[in-house]
Amino acid sequence: MWDSLAPLGRDKDSGGYRRFAWTGADRDVRDWFRQQAADRGLAYEEDRNGNQWAWLGDPEGQDAVVTGSHLDSVPDGGAFDGPLGVVTAFAALDALRERGAAPRKPLAITNFADEEGARFGLACVGSRLSAGALSKEDAFALRDADGISLPRAMERAGFDPEAIGADHARLNRVSAYVELHVEQGRALDLTGDPVGIASAIWPHGRWRFDWRGEANHAGTTRLVDRHDPMLPYAETVLAARREAALAQAVATFGKLHVVPGGVNAIPSLVRGWLDSRAADQETLDTVVTAIEEAAREAAAREGVALAVVRESFTPVVEFGHALREELGRVLRTDGGEVPVLPTGAGHDAGILSAAVPTAMLFVRNPTGVSHAPAEHAERADCHAGVTALADVLEELACR
Amino acid sequence: MWDSLAPLGRDKDSGGYRRFAWTGADRDVRDWFRQQAADRGLAYEEDRNGNQWAWLGDPEGQDAVVTGSHLDSVPDGGAFDGPLGVVTAFAALDALRERGAAPRKPLAITNFADEEGARFGLACVGSRLSAGALSKEDAFALRDADGISLPRAMERAGFDPEAIGADHARLNRVSAYVELHVEQGRALDLTGDPVGIASAIWPHGRWRFDWRGEANHAGTTRLVDRHDPMLPYAETVLAARREAALAQAVATFGKLHVVPGGVNAIPSLVRGWLDSRAADQETLDTVVTAIEEAAREAAAREGVALAVVRESFTPVVEFGHALREELGRVLRTDGGEVPVLPTGAGHDAGILSAAVPTAMLFVRNPTGVSHAPAEHAERADCHAGVTALADVLEELACR
Repeated sequence: MWDSLAPLGRDKDSGGYRRFAWTGADRDVRDWFRQQAADRGLAYEEDRNGNQWAWLGDPEGQDAVVTGSHLDSVPDGGAFDGPLGVVTAFAALDALRERGAAPRKPLAITNFADEEGARFGLACVGSRLSAGALSKEDAFALRDADGISLPRAMERAGFDPEAIGADHARLNRVSAYVELHVEQGRALDLTGDPVGIASAIWPHGRWRFDWRGEANHAGTTRLVDRHDPMLPYAETVLAARREAALAQAVATFGKLHVVPGGVNAIPSLVRGWLDSRAADQETLDTVVTAIEEAAREAAAREGVALAVVRESFTPVVEFGHALREELGRVLRTDGGEVPVLPTGAGHDAGILSAAVPTAMLFVRNPTGVSHAPAEHAERADCHAGVTALADVLEELACR
Repeated sequence: MWDSLAPLGRDKDSGGYRRFAWTGADRDVRDWFRQQAADRGLAYEEDRNGNQWAWLGDPEGQDAVVTGSHLDSVPDGGAFDGPLGVVTAFAALDALRERGAAPRKPLAITNFADEEGARFGLACVGSRLSAGALSKEDAFALRDADGISLPRAMERAGFDPEAIGADHARLNRVSAYVELHVEQGRALDLTGDPVGIASAIWPHGRWRFDWRGEANHAGTTRLVDRHDPMLPYAETVLAARREAALAQAVATFGKLHVVPGGVNAIPSLVRGWLDSRAADQETLDTVVTAIEEAAREAAAREGVALAVVRESFTPVVEFGHALREELGRVLRTDGGEVPVLPTGAGHDAGILSAAVPTAMLFVRNPTGVSHAPAEHAERADCHAGVTALADVLEELACR
């Protein structure tokens, strides 16, 4: 399966993936998903939000057991973040069939649309819509960097945007959603385990900082006459690192927009996006408040205006204890317990956990590199992931 | 004249100009120039480097007196930087004719191509080529942000790039080049004079800083595991301001490129362009060396690699004393001397001064704003500029 998926949406210069929602690369990976379903004789459907489903058993039946992940990517993303959960889902289904295990419940594999939010700036759009965590109105207001709206992009991709919205009837038929994902840190590498179980997802959010100063000539404007928004931006980048370190949280400025963006022009606008996450809500609030304060002080010193908008936010997700413990029981080996670990990364599983019993499995990432071309998982660990996922599905769907 | 020129290449959102070399907007302002020449019965020609010339008298004659400026702009540039020098040139010619002054020498008005360097990153391409300060090979290597080469862009605009190169024969026929320009600081506003004379152009240059770190997930990568190039970039922005202030120089980061540029991705590359200028070479060297040192130290602390490339450099230009003093004599009023002032901005006049006796006139800028939509000059001051330029041309060409 990897061989047919690997070339799709890959940038030949960076070696990373650029599979953005509702683009040509996205269409290619969606076609790949449909073909995998067809190859296995699974019933294929797209739900009203563009999420793909491949069914073994009755799509309208009750108590469905669902697994999968997403196939889109961040800019220059790695091969595993998302696809590993979809590929192992198909492979686990193959393993169940080889074992002769017959599901008593409907079993589905999913590809959730636009998980990374790389194009429209909001993550997990497909699962948010289905869970009712994103309204049609708010979704229609999303625009990409070229000003193309989400509904327009869906339409261009041959999808009807008028149909989008909460899909409670569908989610109510799901008894469990299990998402396998490559780990995005090095916790399993440090404990020496190929597979782990998620305990929680840190609360996290994105904040947009707009510093507005005064465009002017970089060669002739005296320093005292300047209102250069790049200076408070720089101070805020350093403050973000300082505050995150103090709180054992993370804070990152990875996206920036500078207007007018000329070498010899003092900018009129510097727009920077802050991504911050912490173990609990209170810590995160403390960190972001401190960063915002530093940003305001630095802006005031330069006579620059600052506006901060929280563009997205996801509260802490504690995965349900019952399902998590069931996974722990199934996966317990002679060697002992499977590690249970939190993560700083958002996932569709986190969104869906509000509506459906949800759990996550992690596969070891030897370097911890994620959202980058060098992201990696060893083949043996991926196979251990398939076995673990097959064990879990057999327990949940076949007994 | 302003009314017909004002709408060309104007961005309706910002109100600023986007007249980049060899684009459609550039073609429009070049057509405007040709029409102004035709309206006045002037002989029109383009030289081998795409600079436009409008002649009163014999284009092949000796001792030509030349005036003009450029019509291209920075991104979201103002209406005056460049165009004021071309518009006042045509207006001064009209004034000479009204006075009945008959030139004894050939008189030309010029529009030099690609002065701002907004598209290909190198300023004064047209005048550099003519003066032999830029080789054909180096010019052919220039590329815009979309990877389009300068010769390809010229070709698309209907111009033969094979012809470009030094034009000594043409420049040898020029006895004086006088460029009128809106002031880009507030010196004339502070002295209360509508018009001034340039003494010198500060040495200035552009340096590209590439900080290369390691792309990774912004949510899951521990701070200690990061190699985030945004941190040394931020430290360097602050160091640049600090070092420039110490040396009474200027230093600016106004253009930035972040890879991959995702909100939840630690960047692998931050590329920032430094523009720095100072009153003399030694001061500029001191400032840039100190900034580069700060950048290296900050990069080393984060385990980030740094490469610095000087993309362009223009040494100090002292305008010739003889011509400068002649202008001072012509423009001296009952009120006294016309102010003589240096500038931090580069100009075609600075490039040409190596080959031709060259001088500059400045028109008062009440706010000092430059390279921005709010750039402004009062109508009365512009008229004072026309009168001053006509006086100078009458002295140089008609006596």
